[in-house]
Amino acid sequence: MSYSTGSTPDFLKQTNTTSASGQTIPGMPAAASQANVPNPKADLASLDDLERHLFAHRFAQTGMACYGLSIDPPAATADRSEAQAILAEEDHELLCSKSTGDLLARLSAPETDELLDETRKAQVRVLTRDRKRLIDVPPSEQAAFTRLTAKTHDVWLKAKKANDWPSFEPYLERIVEAMRQLASHKNPDADPYDVWLDEFEQGSDHNFYDRFFEQVKDMVVPLIADIAKAGRQPSHRCVEGRFDERRQWELAGDLARLEGIDPATLFLTHTEHPFSDALTTNYGIIAAHVHEDDILSNVYTMLHEGGHVLYEQGVNPAYNYTSLKGGTSSGMHEAQSRFFENYVGRSEAFATPLLKTLRHHFPGQFSRVTARQLYLASNRVVAQPIRTEADELTYPLHILVRYEIEKLLFSGEAKASDVPSLWASRYKSYLGVRVPSAAQGALQDTHWADGLFGYFPTYALGGAYGAQLRHTMIADGMDWDTILSSGDLSAIRSWLREHVWCFGRSKDPSDILLSATGEPLQTRYYTDYLTEKFSSIYEL
Amino acid sequence: MSYSTGSTPDFLKQTNTTSASGQTIPGMPAAASQANVPNPKADLASLDDLERHLFAHRFAQTGMACYGLSIDPPAATADRSEAQAILAEEDHELLCSKSTGDLLARLSAPETDELLDETRKAQVRVLTRDRKRLIDVPPSEQAAFTRLTAKTHDVWLKAKKANDWPSFEPYLERIVEAMRQLASHKNPDADPYDVWLDEFEQGSDHNFYDRFFEQVKDMVVPLIADIAKAGRQPSHRCVEGRFDERRQWELAGDLARLEGIDPATLFLTHTEHPFSDALTTNYGIIAAHVHEDDILSNVYTMLHEGGHVLYEQGVNPAYNYTSLKGGTSSGMHEAQSRFFENYVGRSEAFATPLLKTLRHHFPGQFSRVTARQLYLASNRVVAQPIRTEADELTYPLHILVRYEIEKLLFSGEAKASDVPSLWASRYKSYLGVRVPSAAQGALQDTHWADGLFGYFPTYALGGAYGAQLRHTMIADGMDWDTILSSGDLSAIRSWLREHVWCFGRSKDPSDILLSATGEPLQTRYYTDYLTEKFSSIYEL
Repeated sequence: MSYSTGSTPDFLKQTNTTSASGQTIPGMPAAASQANVPNPKADLASLDDLERHLFAHRFAQTGMACYGLSIDPPAATADRSEAQAILAEEDHELLCSKSTGDLLARLSAPETDELLDETRKAQVRVLTRDRKRLIDVPPSEQAAFTRLTAKTHDVWLKAKKANDWPSFEPYLERIVEAMRQLASHKNPDADPYDVWLDEFEQGSDHNFYDRFFEQVKDMVVPLIADIAKAGRQPSHRCVEGRFDERRQWELAGDLARLEGIDPATLFLTHTEHPFSDALTTNYGIIAAHVHEDDILSNVYTMLHEGGHVLYEQGVNPAYNYTSLKGGTSSGMHEAQSRFFENYVGRSEAFATPLLKTLRHHFPGQFSRVTARQLYLASNRVVAQPIRTEADELTYPLHILVRYEIEKLLFSGEAKASDVPSLWASRYKSYLGVRVPSAAQGALQDTHWADGLFGYFPTYALGGAYGAQLRHTMIADGMDWDTILSSGDLSAIRSWLREHVWCFGRSKDPSDILLSATGEPLQTRYYTDYLTEKFSSIYEL
Repeated sequence: MSYSTGSTPDFLKQTNTTSASGQTIPGMPAAASQANVPNPKADLASLDDLERHLFAHRFAQTGMACYGLSIDPPAATADRSEAQAILAEEDHELLCSKSTGDLLARLSAPETDELLDETRKAQVRVLTRDRKRLIDVPPSEQAAFTRLTAKTHDVWLKAKKANDWPSFEPYLERIVEAMRQLASHKNPDADPYDVWLDEFEQGSDHNFYDRFFEQVKDMVVPLIADIAKAGRQPSHRCVEGRFDERRQWELAGDLARLEGIDPATLFLTHTEHPFSDALTTNYGIIAAHVHEDDILSNVYTMLHEGGHVLYEQGVNPAYNYTSLKGGTSSGMHEAQSRFFENYVGRSEAFATPLLKTLRHHFPGQFSRVTARQLYLASNRVVAQPIRTEADELTYPLHILVRYEIEKLLFSGEAKASDVPSLWASRYKSYLGVRVPSAAQGALQDTHWADGLFGYFPTYALGGAYGAQLRHTMIADGMDWDTILSSGDLSAIRSWLREHVWCFGRSKDPSDILLSATGEPLQTRYYTDYLTEKFSSIYEL
């Protein structure tokens, strides 16, 4: 505040108790001299200051991570990682210092309740939770884990390429052990796998997911078997051919616009493994890829990543510079991306505006294709071993396989060496698929190598959240098919903005779902939707 | 260090005095309890820690600034600026805190001399100077200046577009006044303009530049007059035509390679006003532009910006994570960029490999062009009013005009309202050019609107540094023309790396010039080079 005394850099003042005048007593640290004198006004200023610093760090970190994957020159990787690690250290300090803890404790106390508006209460709640997830983890152990996952990622890349499971196996074993240890610091009383499930989807645990997947499995497995038995398959011919890369990038930009993203707020770039993020509501990033022989990959990548960006950009803009910014959980995020990819993008009604957009960029190839043909071509159910190539119906079973194996590894009932056989037997029994190799089996995804155990289940959960949201929109009177076939999705965006997006991290996913739909999660909306859609397509 | 006590976040520990064990006494701040106990080992660790944090911030800040200008979506500008401002505040705190001051003072004391190697001594010296330039400027005044220049930049954009000098005039007046004030804080005893000249080129002042420009003017003005009198002009025909944008970008990448930049270390992107930077020696950025009707603009933009990147990447890699990273001054930076743009790029010998590269991308247009024709076409002397379009000979006079007006504004001998007439009379007398409008006159550059008084002179100085470096290379026996015509510039890069680049900020520009060439600045190498080159081209 007063730069010239220089006794305490402002940088840290946000976490100190200061007197109302903002003065510190020379030679005496603020926290020591005034810790017991309540000063809510100064505490609120400290909260704002903490949030400002966290915002700037988050902005820098998210940007670096996104640019890094898409535009950094290869030789720069190590330097960028080092800069990111140092900034992460700073974030840890900002959040985990004792003075931040004292500040959050004072602001959570019952006697300050009337001083805080709803936004600030949510900030304190979210910051307290973010802090709790970090505070008891020894930094050395966290750093060792970061190094282990970095190393394992490299090992995985090579192992996948060489179809060499044994080289990856000991690293997987170490990752599971390290994550069990980390979980025991975060919450010594909880089941370690539950700690990670809760980290990605607050409020969830393995009992919750067990019930969810049981219902999904009971419906999807027989339906896939029936489809296989029926032996019919829609034609894929209408989307085959070569599609010029440059024009596909123009198409990608148009798909984002069709979905409702303002081009003035979007940086669209290319990468090998598509991703998206948003630095603020004014700055969305989509990194996508284009394959000249697969135009549907472009279409559904863009609609999926665009759904993530719409969610991030639909958060209350007042949260931009606070910890309430962004989506509330992985599951709710996937709900939005899959909503636009599947419930919108793979619907028969939306095939009309989608076809119009495709024709605009590739008039020769799409002039004689019908909306019905496009709809069928993008909804073929094909049981095969690769998750990222899965259709809407088989997708949750790919996730189920991973979920069940994660549980077994964390409970100690299985070891890394058991994974290939567990993988093969489950793909056989759920999908009727033979796994041809480790590379096309348990080595196909990067998640485990990156220490993301507990993340997979949110992909399937997002599908179910989305189905329940869609059901409510229609039950509330939204003229779903008319809106989709018009290509103007603003009514859908408005609904989602009002009932889901605007809250950012201020509400938990279960609370958002309950207030938006009037019910807790009901898996039947998801299974009913899948049954109806695919029974009709396959005339079962 | 010990996360769980949480008494002082590590974030700031680098600037605290800590005991040898790294422990702080609970409830007592480190600085108060141990300030008088010398502990050089802890001080060195604190220095390293300070540098790590400054590195991460610099990495984030430089990246944001560069990406911002080239790839950020337009709607994101305000959020990015806010994040940058907060990080800048943090940098200020890191550098200007009292504990950092105490640390640097202890490390500068004679008794620690033998403990520090040359690198650390240079770090302490450079950090002390960086800190001195910031410490006495009231943050509120600095922030007000930042807001003023941001506002003035917008005013300038509109004024230039509307050719409206009067709307810009009061802002220019305020900028000059604010910079005089800021200078008085930085160094109350010095001439305010000298403070800014020294900021961009340490060791320089207006006496130094007066002598320099006097010599340049005495030679260049009559030579330009002679050329005008001669009435001859080389043909430009061989570089006229339309050059496909996409192929020009491929050409741009090849020019960077020809110059010697490893593509694995370069992010090449597009922007309206070209610039370059480097996050570390492993990460160069060039933002360039391409005009289909002007291929030479592409060529010389790339060679110029590439020169900047070569300098940054030629710094001792051990300095990457320290304040010694990067070029030592604006003048020395311009020396490198102009070296590759002019002394290499506009030489007759280099026209051979350059033509080969042009032919590779545009075989139709360049198949019958000779190296001599290309050389002459890129060296036409044309007195005209726009600085960025100036040839190598008239260029320093454009700078001289700006330098003289800056001096008059800072001394109070002229007011902003006098600028258009001062501009017109000088362009007339030095270049023989009538200034057609304010937009093509004093409104053409963004520098003054951005508060960069004192920066322009380094452009001309860089030309002179470069000429002296070139003279020394040749005097030392380098086979200049053979090297240039071979297209393999590695010998030149090695020389510059050894004598200039490697030092980064560890040596001042005057020291680098002296050790590299054995002399302080001798303007005659520059004027002799210009005289010889253009007398020959124009057969005077």
